[in-house]
Amino acid sequence: MISRAIGFEKGFDLADGNFFETFEIMLPQLTEYDVMVQNIAISINPIDTKLRQTGKGTKAPHILGFDSVGIVTQVGEQVPDLVAGDRIIFAGTTNRYGSYSEKQIVDSRIVAKLPENISSEKAAALPLTFLTAYELLFEKMDLIPKENGNNETILIINGAGGVGSIMIQLAKWAGLNVIATASRPETIAWCEKLGANHVISHQKNLTRQVNKLGYETLPYIAILHSSDHYYDEMTGLLSPFGYLGSTVTTGKDHNLAKLKEKSGSFVWEYMFAKTDYNYQIESQGKALSLLSNLLSTEKIQSTLTETLDGLSPEVFYQAHQKIESNQMIGKLVIRY
Amino acid sequence: MISRAIGFEKGFDLADGNFFETFEIMLPQLTEYDVMVQNIAISINPIDTKLRQTGKGTKAPHILGFDSVGIVTQVGEQVPDLVAGDRIIFAGTTNRYGSYSEKQIVDSRIVAKLPENISSEKAAALPLTFLTAYELLFEKMDLIPKENGNNETILIINGAGGVGSIMIQLAKWAGLNVIATASRPETIAWCEKLGANHVISHQKNLTRQVNKLGYETLPYIAILHSSDHYYDEMTGLLSPFGYLGSTVTTGKDHNLAKLKEKSGSFVWEYMFAKTDYNYQIESQGKALSLLSNLLSTEKIQSTLTETLDGLSPEVFYQAHQKIESNQMIGKLVIRY
Repeated sequence: MISRAIGFEKGFDLADGNFFETFEIMLPQLTEYDVMVQNIAISINPIDTKLRQTGKGTKAPHILGFDSVGIVTQVGEQVPDLVAGDRIIFAGTTNRYGSYSEKQIVDSRIVAKLPENISSEKAAALPLTFLTAYELLFEKMDLIPKENGNNETILIINGAGGVGSIMIQLAKWAGLNVIATASRPETIAWCEKLGANHVISHQKNLTRQVNKLGYETLPYIAILHSSDHYYDEMTGLLSPFGYLGSTVTTGKDHNLAKLKEKSGSFVWEYMFAKTDYNYQIESQGKALSLLSNLLSTEKIQSTLTETLDGLSPEVFYQAHQKIESNQMIGKLVIRY
Repeated sequence: MISRAIGFEKGFDLADGNFFETFEIMLPQLTEYDVMVQNIAISINPIDTKLRQTGKGTKAPHILGFDSVGIVTQVGEQVPDLVAGDRIIFAGTTNRYGSYSEKQIVDSRIVAKLPENISSEKAAALPLTFLTAYELLFEKMDLIPKENGNNETILIINGAGGVGSIMIQLAKWAGLNVIATASRPETIAWCEKLGANHVISHQKNLTRQVNKLGYETLPYIAILHSSDHYYDEMTGLLSPFGYLGSTVTTGKDHNLAKLKEKSGSFVWEYMFAKTDYNYQIESQGKALSLLSNLLSTEKIQSTLTETLDGLSPEVFYQAHQKIESNQMIGKLVIRY
């Protein structure tokens, strides 16, 4: 099966021009657990811009894209619960052709069906960030994935970004008291709208602001931006037996011993670890079913803030520019 | 209440001579949750030698000692379940006079009663190391504190040390497959006797030996010696979503990002964090009740290997020499 896709041959910087091109790619045969999907709407994540810069990901041409809502068109032999025509949501994996493509192949164990009362655009904004937030809170920290199941406080650094925007809501759903950071009036308003109990400024000292709110230390801290910058300060703000979590890689070495006297934990969350290592991948399908349910019952809202149209090199160039500006609130979606 | 105790005024090196002295210390009044204990047998841990070198711990004179079995002689007003004459086991805390003393005061929430069929010497070898092993396995890693409750494999680096000797047994009790490291014939035999499924040598490359046993990666790794030395290699051996735990502080900075692609966790265990920060201290009393139960039913055995007699400066000097030799197998106990 041939699919029209947007990709690139070699990693490139946006400043050097638009090296996105249209390709006709040959999709592989479906294996027993796979489905083929006709993509309707996809979203762009910071990892896309990193892989575009470094030229990593699948072999050339690199066809990125890790968030999609689409219609099932073919079903593998061992897929128990999907038929052609079903609308599904998924983040996918870094080791196969992605969603910058009319059609793609995805393992059915990492997808979920989408109820009718949710638009494809709104849903497409969410899978990668939802899985990241879900795994960090409920698999890497010891929080309980249950409505109002936790009576704790969490600090979310960079509340208005893609992961932060859904993590605020998911943490609230789970009963947590949420302190989010933001610095611009529009990002502060966004965090408040999503349900953050307190919004503090990452332009000022976070510890002093948290202390002013009445918390000497915090048991859960999620660093969703500039891990190198926040590591030392957050080891000081963490409670004994607390969890310091991060989704953003470090570029220098750090003093682990700062967490020792508190018996603290440093936990990474990287959602592609599961598909990269074939580790409990079916758990991502289950988490996305929860996402569908929470969207359908309006317990969480989409983090979609901007939509572009068309499967073209120009649209993807423009989308990557917006993500790289570092000024995004919530998520950008492209409709095909 | 006055108690005879062994302590020191200032931190000292053993090479400079024996600066342990006999003191008559005044014990404070019991608070509502406290009990007073007449110590029968106590044990020495590596933290004792560190505190003796640095002169930290309680204010001078420094009276160390973090493992004891003793008889309750007085009971605070709010202590529900202990009476004078009860024999109890506890590790205590770094912020009060310790067990190098005829009598001491301890919070009743961090002690457990000891059944009659266990000798004081055998039991006194265990509380600090048991609490460390228990908290690392069942509170810092995600293992389940239940007999045969886990179908996983753990690597325990330094299996024959104090913590390793009890962790091997506790992990086996919990159903884990245990790979321990040791290098001398007598420590290898000791680890095997305690139930380790495999013993590999920390004089050779651990990854290659683990691979030879048929494991490409491991989901649980406990570093109980030389954390700086093992950190990099163990990040490579860890499974996706795995736990790299340590009880031994680091002296240099480390590359956290090595754990990111696997979504790994680095977790510290320091058992005094609870009493230092007044964090869920009653959980230590409960864990010690499990210890009493496991000893009483012979599901685990004491790690006692050597006993000295007498509350004297000479005995404590000798005991500290043995611990600092780094050649100890299991635990050293002093009987008063």
